[in-house]
Amino acid sequence: MCRFLAYHGEPVLLEDLICASDHSLIHQSLHAMECKTGTNGDGFGLGWYGERPTPGIFRDLRPAWSDENLRSLCAQVRSPLFFAHVRAATGTATSRANCHPFSHGRWLFMHNGQVGDYPRIKRQLEAALPDSLYDIRQGTTDSEVLFLLTLARIEAGMTPEGALTDVLALVKDSMRAAGITAPLRFTATLSDGRTTWAVRTACDDRPPSLYMLTRPNAVIFASEPLEMRREGWQALPQHSIAIVEHGRDVAISPFAITVPSRSAA
Amino acid sequence: MCRFLAYHGEPVLLEDLICASDHSLIHQSLHAMECKTGTNGDGFGLGWYGERPTPGIFRDLRPAWSDENLRSLCAQVRSPLFFAHVRAATGTATSRANCHPFSHGRWLFMHNGQVGDYPRIKRQLEAALPDSLYDIRQGTTDSEVLFLLTLARIEAGMTPEGALTDVLALVKDSMRAAGITAPLRFTATLSDGRTTWAVRTACDDRPPSLYMLTRPNAVIFASEPLEMRREGWQALPQHSIAIVEHGRDVAISPFAITVPSRSAA
Amino acid sequence: MCRFLAYHGEPVLLEDLICASDHSLIHQSLHAMECKTGTNGDGFGLGWYGERPTPGIFRDLRPAWSDENLRSLCAQVRSPLFFAHVRAATGTATSRANCHPFSHGRWLFMHNGQVGDYPRIKRQLEAALPDSLYDIRQGTTDSEVLFLLTLARIEAGMTPEGALTDVLALVKDSMRAAGITAPLRFTATLSDGRTTWAVRTACDDRPPSLYMLTRPNAVIFASEPLEMRREGWQALPQHSIAIVEHGRDVAISPFAITVPSRSAA
Amino acid sequence: MCRFLAYHGEPVLLEDLICASDHSLIHQSLHAMECKTGTNGDGFGLGWYGERPTPGIFRDLRPAWSDENLRSLCAQVRSPLFFAHVRAATGTATSRANCHPFSHGRWLFMHNGQVGDYPRIKRQLEAALPDSLYDIRQGTTDSEVLFLLTLARIEAGMTPEGALTDVLALVKDSMRAAGITAPLRFTATLSDGRTTWAVRTACDDRPPSLYMLTRPNAVIFASEPLEMRREGWQALPQHSIAIVEHGRDVAISPFAITVPSRSAA
Repeated sequence: MCRFLAYHGEPVLLEDLICASDHSLIHQSLHAMECKTGTNGDGFGLGWYGERPTPGIFRDLRPAWSDENLRSLCAQVRSPLFFAHVRAATGTATSRANCHPFSHGRWLFMHNGQVGDYPRIKRQLEAALPDSLYDIRQGTTDSEVLFLLTLARIEAGMTPEGALTDVLALVKDSMRAAGITAPLRFTATLSDGRTTWAVRTACDDRPPSLYMLTRPNAVIFASEPLEMRREGWQALPQHSIAIVEHGRDVAISPFAITVPSRSAA
Repeated sequence: MCRFLAYHGEPVLLEDLICASDHSLIHQSLHAMECKTGTNGDGFGLGWYGERPTPGIFRDLRPAWSDENLRSLCAQVRSPLFFAHVRAATGTATSRANCHPFSHGRWLFMHNGQVGDYPRIKRQLEAALPDSLYDIRQGTTDSEVLFLLTLARIEAGMTPEGALTDVLALVKDSMRAAGITAPLRFTATLSDGRTTWAVRTACDDRPPSLYMLTRPNAVIFASEPLEMRREGWQALPQHSIAIVEHGRDVAISPFAITVPSRSAA
Repeated sequence: MCRFLAYHGEPVLLEDLICASDHSLIHQSLHAMECKTGTNGDGFGLGWYGERPTPGIFRDLRPAWSDENLRSLCAQVRSPLFFAHVRAATGTATSRANCHPFSHGRWLFMHNGQVGDYPRIKRQLEAALPDSLYDIRQGTTDSEVLFLLTLARIEAGMTPEGALTDVLALVKDSMRAAGITAPLRFTATLSDGRTTWAVRTACDDRPPSLYMLTRPNAVIFASEPLEMRREGWQALPQHSIAIVEHGRDVAISPFAITVPSRSAA
Repeated sequence: MCRFLAYHGEPVLLEDLICASDHSLIHQSLHAMECKTGTNGDGFGLGWYGERPTPGIFRDLRPAWSDENLRSLCAQVRSPLFFAHVRAATGTATSRANCHPFSHGRWLFMHNGQVGDYPRIKRQLEAALPDSLYDIRQGTTDSEVLFLLTLARIEAGMTPEGALTDVLALVKDSMRAAGITAPLRFTATLSDGRTTWAVRTACDDRPPSLYMLTRPNAVIFASEPLEMRREGWQALPQHSIAIVEHGRDVAISPFAITVPSRSAA
């Protein structure tokens, strides 16, 4: 179980959210409270939008709590839209390429969850990638493949919501075909630098936590509230998607994992 | 172009070959002479057989020339059969999983060469892996896939020579089908802890260098002779394979890249 | 608060103690039970005696729980005397040079404890180092300075017990002179490859934990018992020193921090 | 021999100088031309001023030529004043703390050169640090000590030029007292975020190279010109100091290593 946060709003120094508060993401890297393992020390990552359409990416392998580079960068960089993630590996190697967020072109993605018995359907999911995205895989995580499958659909013209729905249906369908009963759980955020999508869903009723705080000019998503007193934070309801655009209210809609009819046939 | 060495014979301290001589592998990591880039600073790796059938593996990302752990380990470990490799990355990321040697079970493999235009046939080669080996890929190099394809054939009953021949034929055939004219070059060593195979071949006449030194109770292969005066080192002829077994003379046979008849049909 | 273990006896594979048991050192790196922070993820180290008088050293910055190199090395190396340490940094940087064990020549040392308000007496303690040892400091920890001060006394002819006593008296004296009231706590092991000394003491009554397990041909010291059921493990009494030599029973004697008379004058 | 660059002028993206040109600093990390070892692969560092008075610092251990984080950061960060450095270690460990630039408060410093036989006067120079700066040393390089000695003088009221002069005199004096005949060579840059000082001097006539390029609104210093054709780049004369302030012409004055009269007495 990883911990993450996503910020979308008025530009702020990254450190305000990542380092400074009393249950900041760095604090959560060592003392997460709402998951079985409280330690998220298997690398971290940062993706932020600046003056370019493509985001900056900074991922490294030391625990976030002791990385001087991370602290210094967060003290200098101001951004209107950034993702940060601390990782607790569950089987795959600790490498930069396995750290979230993942990026491609303008897109940024991070994920907290699980694809039950993933190795049994890994091959099938990778085979579903178009050539152009097959070759850019850098790591070995299920999360990266989920991201690339989503991108493939967006590039083919789907909306991001539609793409995410379609990918989760494909995954669930593959799991069912393989006889996998372990759950599919998916709490994730996606952005193209202008809009941010946050999803919290699962095929059982236990999607990983995701909290939301709305400020006058910003929305923050986080695995756990960034302040111990949790004031103003509310859980994103399970089976829902939140969409954030600059200058608009957050739009929250139902979002479920459904299996496409072709596989039910 | 990477640099590597393989030792098979009476147990020696690793440092004798990796650190001590005047053109040791560590020296070659900074001052290689027989390749375009003299610097091999994108990680290194060590695989050695000890008292177990499976080898030990130590791979890291700092340049070999400055890694204290590597020096200390080489000063302590004595082995009758080990591989060591310093990497010059050509496009893929610097990560432990992309460092040679690769290992699986009793097997150890390292490679210096190129598969021309690899991204165009990567998908096809990975698809040729059996499920059991598909899932254990850790990195993104062509070398790892060549190793796993070879293992698949050995597990299916081929001899290692036959497996290597068959894999290179598959690769060359895939390249031809994709219209790739860039060369396939393959200088590599493989071992199961009892026998070592060293191959030097290419589809053009420019396989990467490989030298051999025969001592009374040992054989050493290296990309460049480990001593400046090069006494006793001889180039392994191109298009050949050398087979080393304990207590026997090295056997050298022709070894060429051939395209299977099915593709010529 | 770090966690460590020291083994002295019949040669064993390192993994037997470092990786395999249900509360092995690697398990303690993520789930320590007898200290405030259960996470020891700020680097680790290994020192082991092999066929040479000087020990091998392997120290790295990733958490011990996820380092493949550490696991592979431990699966291959057999040693009659080794130290292993997982670090929870308390203020100083995460760097290899700050990881325990420290070594110099034949000597190996590791430490779990604190020198209260160390920055206020750091200069004075470093000034007490002889030239030859002043220059070999690599890191910035108090532990390394304690080790070098001890070595200086041993090189000058003191017994190791005498040297440790003298160093702790110097430190306590310096603390008193600086008006420091924070405690001095010292749980440590020292070896020259033939004899191992284990100390547990403090100027208050709260020295860090140290447990001991005696086997027919070996003695193990560890911050926490290596098995959950703790059978056979006993706490080393506080204010004591244990001395292990091959073929002899462990000798345990009182060992206290005393302030030399000169400073009382 | 390291390679470095310093930029002071209109804000630019770091990548323009660090990554993009045909002999950019990253290119120099692998193919330096004006020094004995062309490889500067023992870590790198970046210090940049943003919206705060204190600079950001990013230092890491992989070679600059293959670090994705460095490239991504340089593609996003725009700064009016930054230092970048690629290191070729000469005896001291590869650690973040030994990478340039060094920073403290508003100050930034980097150095290319040597203090002949430094270990013989290290103790004396460190003893010359005031308490407040003695404790913040993080690494083991001569460069960091030169920086802190300079800061001590600036904090005591000297001008930066005066402080640098005084420190080099102290060092040269210490070398002479110790009977050291190896040279003192010092090519360095220093900044407080508003003014930048660049020095090139030596006690013999072989100070490390430093080139300067003046643009309408900027000045760049670099160990080697950043473009192969070198147009517009001029060597900073040896034994001189250049001072850059926003909106003013660069002021170049003589700057020599002199030994204070007290030591000549």
